[in-house]
Amino acid sequence: MAENKEEDVKLGANKFRERQPLGTAAQTDKDYKEAPPAPLFEPGELKSWSFYRAGIAEFMATFLFLYITVLTVMGVGRAPNKCASVGIQGIAWAFGGMIFALVYCTAGISGGHINPAVTFGLFLARKLSLTRALFYIVMQCLGAICGAGVVKGYMSGPYQRLKGGANFVNHGYTKGSGLGAEIIGTFVLVYTVFSATDAKRNARDSHVPLLAPLPIGFAVFLVHLATIPITGTGINPARSLGAAIIYNKGHAWDDHWIFWVGPFIGAALAAIYHQIVIRAIPFRSRAAC
Amino acid sequence: MAENKEEDVKLGANKFRERQPLGTAAQTDKDYKEAPPAPLFEPGELKSWSFYRAGIAEFMATFLFLYITVLTVMGVGRAPNKCASVGIQGIAWAFGGMIFALVYCTAGISGGHINPAVTFGLFLARKLSLTRALFYIVMQCLGAICGAGVVKGYMSGPYQRLKGGANFVNHGYTKGSGLGAEIIGTFVLVYTVFSATDAKRNARDSHVPLLAPLPIGFAVFLVHLATIPITGTGINPARSLGAAIIYNKGHAWDDHWIFWVGPFIGAALAAIYHQIVIRAIPFRSRAAC
Amino acid sequence: MAENKEEDVKLGANKFRERQPLGTAAQTDKDYKEAPPAPLFEPGELKSWSFYRAGIAEFMATFLFLYITVLTVMGVGRAPNKCASVGIQGIAWAFGGMIFALVYCTAGISGGHINPAVTFGLFLARKLSLTRALFYIVMQCLGAICGAGVVKGYMSGPYQRLKGGANFVNHGYTKGSGLGAEIIGTFVLVYTVFSATDAKRNARDSHVPLLAPLPIGFAVFLVHLATIPITGTGINPARSLGAAIIYNKGHAWDDHWIFWVGPFIGAALAAIYHQIVIRAIPFRSRAAC
Amino acid sequence: MAENKEEDVKLGANKFRERQPLGTAAQTDKDYKEAPPAPLFEPGELKSWSFYRAGIAEFMATFLFLYITVLTVMGVGRAPNKCASVGIQGIAWAFGGMIFALVYCTAGISGGHINPAVTFGLFLARKLSLTRALFYIVMQCLGAICGAGVVKGYMSGPYQRLKGGANFVNHGYTKGSGLGAEIIGTFVLVYTVFSATDAKRNARDSHVPLLAPLPIGFAVFLVHLATIPITGTGINPARSLGAAIIYNKGHAWDDHWIFWVGPFIGAALAAIYHQIVIRAIPFRSRAAC
Repeated sequence: MAENKEEDVKLGANKFRERQPLGTAAQTDKDYKEAPPAPLFEPGELKSWSFYRAGIAEFMATFLFLYITVLTVMGVGRAPNKCASVGIQGIAWAFGGMIFALVYCTAGISGGHINPAVTFGLFLARKLSLTRALFYIVMQCLGAICGAGVVKGYMSGPYQRLKGGANFVNHGYTKGSGLGAEIIGTFVLVYTVFSATDAKRNARDSHVPLLAPLPIGFAVFLVHLATIPITGTGINPARSLGAAIIYNKGHAWDDHWIFWVGPFIGAALAAIYHQIVIRAIPFRSRAAC
Repeated sequence: MAENKEEDVKLGANKFRERQPLGTAAQTDKDYKEAPPAPLFEPGELKSWSFYRAGIAEFMATFLFLYITVLTVMGVGRAPNKCASVGIQGIAWAFGGMIFALVYCTAGISGGHINPAVTFGLFLARKLSLTRALFYIVMQCLGAICGAGVVKGYMSGPYQRLKGGANFVNHGYTKGSGLGAEIIGTFVLVYTVFSATDAKRNARDSHVPLLAPLPIGFAVFLVHLATIPITGTGINPARSLGAAIIYNKGHAWDDHWIFWVGPFIGAALAAIYHQIVIRAIPFRSRAAC
Repeated sequence: MAENKEEDVKLGANKFRERQPLGTAAQTDKDYKEAPPAPLFEPGELKSWSFYRAGIAEFMATFLFLYITVLTVMGVGRAPNKCASVGIQGIAWAFGGMIFALVYCTAGISGGHINPAVTFGLFLARKLSLTRALFYIVMQCLGAICGAGVVKGYMSGPYQRLKGGANFVNHGYTKGSGLGAEIIGTFVLVYTVFSATDAKRNARDSHVPLLAPLPIGFAVFLVHLATIPITGTGINPARSLGAAIIYNKGHAWDDHWIFWVGPFIGAALAAIYHQIVIRAIPFRSRAAC
Repeated sequence: MAENKEEDVKLGANKFRERQPLGTAAQTDKDYKEAPPAPLFEPGELKSWSFYRAGIAEFMATFLFLYITVLTVMGVGRAPNKCASVGIQGIAWAFGGMIFALVYCTAGISGGHINPAVTFGLFLARKLSLTRALFYIVMQCLGAICGAGVVKGYMSGPYQRLKGGANFVNHGYTKGSGLGAEIIGTFVLVYTVFSATDAKRNARDSHVPLLAPLPIGFAVFLVHLATIPITGTGINPARSLGAAIIYNKGHAWDDHWIFWVGPFIGAALAAIYHQIVIRAIPFRSRAAC
């Protein structure tokens, strides 16, 4: 394998590779096969059991994601003081850690999206059909509603009092800041997803998909560290919708559009950035001149 | 290996594989050999030294697990305030981190269960014989009792005052919520164990068993973040039994059934889910039509 | 590969290998090809799109690095008490975690420096040309300024009141201690970068570059745990410059030289240590006698 | 590699392998070559530059270990309240994280011991010569003294007031408990070192040495979570000696023997346990009957 690797590099069209000391960077276009873009509609898909299995896996993963994270948020809220709980940092670990574990567990079944913004970003890059994308998003939202619902079932009174983990733009921040935080936060997440699952990378290093869940989970953890004070951190419309539906007080819906518009813009920007900088589609044509 | 991988995918019966962008998902049924189901009784096993060695390893691992975790719980309890200790989050790290380290160390000797619920779930999936399952569970419970006992030996007074890390359904939660928390928490753990050790996955990626301890340990950490406020988090009947026997006050036993019934139901649900969704046994027969 | 490995060891010039129980240590000089030192100026580089793409990736990574970390610092500062925030430890996780995720994402594009001190250290070891080093440093500084600027855009008042994450030598420490903390802290980081990306190591273990981001991110986390009380921890001149320019009060500039001189001395010492101890250049000639 | 692995298993003398679902467990004795036991004295070693380089690497690693960890301890001690610092949990991360990063960096040079107890345990298992063991221990102690000395140089007054990170048996615990905590804590560490670097494991999975630093670092982190309240956690005689020499008040030496005797007993027990359970030396002879 070491020799293969060496050869990849020698065959490379890019003669500056030795200038990139930290990376695995071989900017050749030859050593991997890119999957053709997914069609918008693939009716045969609907007859495949693996399609429905993937949807069930997305439902189950989003259910467990909301269950563990909202329960952690409630535990911190109910504690007599923050020091007697896992703290705000513990909440960030719950969100990031669950994404790490669930992406690890479901990547081989459904791709492990667990987030409509991730599904949207990968759809824009034509990695899955529109049919599949819509099915995933519906299943993710249903799973999120059920996950938050079970937490409310454990403690109806405190749940309503503590606002059930729903996302708001907090006092002291404008709606513009909240929207910006959601856009850039989702960009960080979807940019990591694209980087970790790049087809070129996979072709060179066959074990990447197994390591990918760790930086993806860390990206979620880091965005929570930074933006919990601003919006409670959405960057996942299913998570925001599930918490809002189960809490369902009027003001839960006031800012709700931010947690759909922000993540979808962030995911779209990450997809564009990936096509231009990482995959370098405009540069490749010029390099061929 | 890269080429092997490509070939796996090309040979695959599932023509929708390119629609699964994040995963390693090749839903072929050809590229791995499934171990035949373990017999209920395998008398030859009892004459093998590796059988007893595995039991000793389970004893030792559960001993160290209870020792470190109950000592951490006691340290947090004895501190003048929670901020002068590693805090509730530190307790969650102790439980999850020990499972990570111990699964890493004992996976090659006994399979690294360290938990009767894990043993029960793997037994239901016919991955080990009934003889071995019962032997493991006995050794795990003995190890847990010894581990908690050593902690009590360090500090008899505070141990009794602080309830010795025993599991209870806390004030403000119903017994039903406690049982539900144990069921879903154990489901998260055993679902991760099944996902991380799936035979199909192993066949494709020979280094999975080495990476598996990390998501398994994280699953334990995450369930503790969420459910320490509810029950102190069992999801491991040996851990609950060891702490209860060494503490041994009347009310330690009031809720004790929850910490056996809950984990065993959760493990059974995870085994069923794995057979149906991950391994897709009912779907495979239909797909063959 | 197992056999290859065995052979490496048998072929090795160092007959004491079995004395090194933990390591992968085979001190042979044969099993890897060292890249020739990069020239100071490589004009052809400037005509390559991959050169500009790498600069854009450094800009974007440093932008996201400052955005997430300064936002986390602001969130901790604005909280009514530290326990109601992610805490100082959360700040350390933000810095270390972002370096982990960003090195993972950009290593294949630009080498993933995200830090002028790292670029300087690798330039001293002749791993990249002077042209590329200067271009990277300029892009890193621009990215850092933009990242801190967006955070100020969210909350102009608190940003100025809380000093915008700028680095200072704190009360109770001399400027000499601050400089020492920056030198040794950067040494830890750049020493880890060299160790994780050593050409000898890569030749033996083809997946090292994928694992390298974790110890590199951890090194940043650890230095922050230790030196936040002294200087707020720079060890990255772009991070210090970006925060200082956006804060831009007189005293932000008083100690600013420390956060350029310290990291550059630390990086140079790490490069020297690597050449002498890790690569053993003086020892190799003697061993050849 | 996948096929190789399958073959390992098929060749295995242990017909019960399929009963070990989680593990990589193939208890064959054929698929690896064990290094012969190291001689007590190997005079040729003293003429090898790699011998001195390894000593310098141990010195540097232990220097950085004490520098970062004692500085973190001082930062927590000087904070107006624990919540305004990285906290006790941050101290545990500093110790465990540094061991992770330093083992990763120095494993290929010296084996990455950074701890006389680890060196002693590996010496008992005859993995290195007595000459090398003594040289490592001397270099580790010198490095530790220098590391703690630099921290005192930064802040002489607070250093003495806060007891300079020296180890004591804390109020409320007997000397017996302190000794027990050191013995079992070092057992956890050295048991993990043996498990992670087992020759059988290496033969099957060539990338183990690269993953080994993570569980080893976690073991150190976990023991600190549990035993900081009892002794401040030694489990490393060089760390205890360095802190005690630089602090150098009478009572620093009262309990000092515990931090040499405890770790050495713990390391010896781990070596014995490894020979008997993991390597199964007594069982192997019987199995051959």
